[in-house]
Amino acid sequence: MTYGETRLGILGGGQLGRMLLQAGIDLNLYTLILDPDADAPCKSLCHEFYQGSFADFSTVYNFGKKCDVLTIEIEHVNVEALFKLEAEGVRVYPNPEAIRIIQDKGLQKEFYQQHQIPTADFRLVANRVEVEQNQDFLPVFQKLRRFGYDGRGVTRLATAEDITKGFDEPSVLEKLVPFEKEIAVIAARNARGEVSCFPVVELSFHPEHNLVDYLFSPANISPAIEQAAQDLATQVIQAFDMVGLLAVEMFLTPAGELLVNEVAPRPHNSGHHTYKANYTSQFEQHLRAILNLPLGNTGLHSAAVMLNLLGEAGFSGEAQYEGADAALAVSGVTIHLYGKKYTRPFRKMGHLTITAPTVAEARQKAEHVRNLVKVKA
Amino acid sequence: MTYGETRLGILGGGQLGRMLLQAGIDLNLYTLILDPDADAPCKSLCHEFYQGSFADFSTVYNFGKKCDVLTIEIEHVNVEALFKLEAEGVRVYPNPEAIRIIQDKGLQKEFYQQHQIPTADFRLVANRVEVEQNQDFLPVFQKLRRFGYDGRGVTRLATAEDITKGFDEPSVLEKLVPFEKEIAVIAARNARGEVSCFPVVELSFHPEHNLVDYLFSPANISPAIEQAAQDLATQVIQAFDMVGLLAVEMFLTPAGELLVNEVAPRPHNSGHHTYKANYTSQFEQHLRAILNLPLGNTGLHSAAVMLNLLGEAGFSGEAQYEGADAALAVSGVTIHLYGKKYTRPFRKMGHLTITAPTVAEARQKAEHVRNLVKVKA
Repeated sequence: MTYGETRLGILGGGQLGRMLLQAGIDLNLYTLILDPDADAPCKSLCHEFYQGSFADFSTVYNFGKKCDVLTIEIEHVNVEALFKLEAEGVRVYPNPEAIRIIQDKGLQKEFYQQHQIPTADFRLVANRVEVEQNQDFLPVFQKLRRFGYDGRGVTRLATAEDITKGFDEPSVLEKLVPFEKEIAVIAARNARGEVSCFPVVELSFHPEHNLVDYLFSPANISPAIEQAAQDLATQVIQAFDMVGLLAVEMFLTPAGELLVNEVAPRPHNSGHHTYKANYTSQFEQHLRAILNLPLGNTGLHSAAVMLNLLGEAGFSGEAQYEGADAALAVSGVTIHLYGKKYTRPFRKMGHLTITAPTVAEARQKAEHVRNLVKVKA
Repeated sequence: MTYGETRLGILGGGQLGRMLLQAGIDLNLYTLILDPDADAPCKSLCHEFYQGSFADFSTVYNFGKKCDVLTIEIEHVNVEALFKLEAEGVRVYPNPEAIRIIQDKGLQKEFYQQHQIPTADFRLVANRVEVEQNQDFLPVFQKLRRFGYDGRGVTRLATAEDITKGFDEPSVLEKLVPFEKEIAVIAARNARGEVSCFPVVELSFHPEHNLVDYLFSPANISPAIEQAAQDLATQVIQAFDMVGLLAVEMFLTPAGELLVNEVAPRPHNSGHHTYKANYTSQFEQHLRAILNLPLGNTGLHSAAVMLNLLGEAGFSGEAQYEGADAALAVSGVTIHLYGKKYTRPFRKMGHLTITAPTVAEARQKAEHVRNLVKVKA
């Protein structure tokens, strides 16, 4: 067995890395973290912490040389260093080529096209002039090819007048797809090629603001769509020849078609509930995959809702958490704080998971607790 | 809310402390550990680690002064220091008086008697001469009043000839009770007086060696006995006026009577499965209790077996784990390693948890995996 005392390096020391470290305690891993923030959430939970930029070649390379296995919690890392580390025998999971493609939304879209993976129609543009030359393609979402994150780097161009409000940088113009639901599947694959998918997660949008309100699982879809979504996620992770987790966000169209929106080659927000509602959490599964262990049972033992705890608008500074006591008094509610010292408006500071025997009951409880907890300063 | 950044101190840095730290990550606690071993399992998972003896007054006192809340993962600690810390405003949970009584099996037995808590008949002796004076009381278990642990400090005196093989120290002579089952209940109580019990756990003994083979939950007992066992655990934790967890080991006699055997005022081996099989783990529950948060739902979502991974006989040195891959290939099997560098015969090095829809299925799987994993050197 390979994992007792395996030296596992993680590029990124935020909440995803923190939850990986938490799961890794079970496996007695020796852990190393690289993060630019000296107060990163992982700081006190790893064996070795290095402050540095994961965009910098030699920082990533020198860090990676200390590791047996190297993984990521964020995809915006220096891939040249990863290619070199892989060539020198470090087990880099996910593979650098998959990261290179996924980092760039343009390459991502082309990859789907090349691999017959259904996705919304798109065009690539280099700047605003090229956007203007593609007015016939509107309405679209304009997405920056690189460094978009959590909704940043995305804007909607409905008419020609919107173009000046858009980006003047290399970006993807993606045809607006009318969709019925937005869903996500997390797939895992280990080095021996086993693939396993978590049950589909559905995003619930706020009826007025059109922002994601919370996620729930199982999704409110037919068994046939559930199967098709898992098959599609399996197709995508195999196409990338990836080891580790791949979170696949999809649109379900009114015609019952599934289109891949975006992917993330790492643990993902849409899998946080698995820690409390599934037999195996996404974090344990990622570790099993990259350590080439048998994959765990992904089934749900409970229905679940996951609510992000975002920094309240109007508050910046040392985080204070209000109202958690009332939320925790509700049976099935657990809180997970990310260990971030400072809050700012809409910063992801933690999440609540609400489990119940049925999704209807979990969603009902979520409606009750969603406004109880506030992150202020 | 009180727990973001609460300074939580734990006396003891072994596997129980480690699992408390793991659960504490969810709550963003600031953690301090005191342990005599410089390589204690908690070493790299806390914010501040102090090497020192928890039997020493000033070591414990000085450590406790750094904490908002102080708890234990082992009961053999200096209680005088805890009394002083409590008087000076540190929240010491469990309360020092409960620890003082529980540390001494003689005081423990007298406490049960005073509080009408059913327990096996006993006599207290100071030395071997007094054992001889109580020959009429045989057969008994002779248990050292202090520092017994994991079966150490217990011997069986069947006849007068056995007395010379027994202890010549202050001990309890406990009447042998014919029992049908040995069971355990973990109760939790928070500072506002809420009490909640986990479902009963049953010990399964090896048919030949008469050693505990594994634990399983739910226990194979009637609902009436299940209720009686939880009521008894509730009575005991209330009698001790305790905040935190109390693991109550009991005998079920052939007449259907429950007798308290021993208690532990902390997370306990008999609750390890709760991390994988219950909605709330014993570790999260202990933290909820001592932080005076609402207690979590203790229900089982799956039936479970917990198997200790002990160091193989004949091996001492740096631990190597064999066969985990085959065990983890069985659906529902998870491993938890304690991060101990060195193994020795029968040292607790980790455990396996096996979950399944029914206890019968979990036990069947346990029989299959129990001999797969070996801890060698």
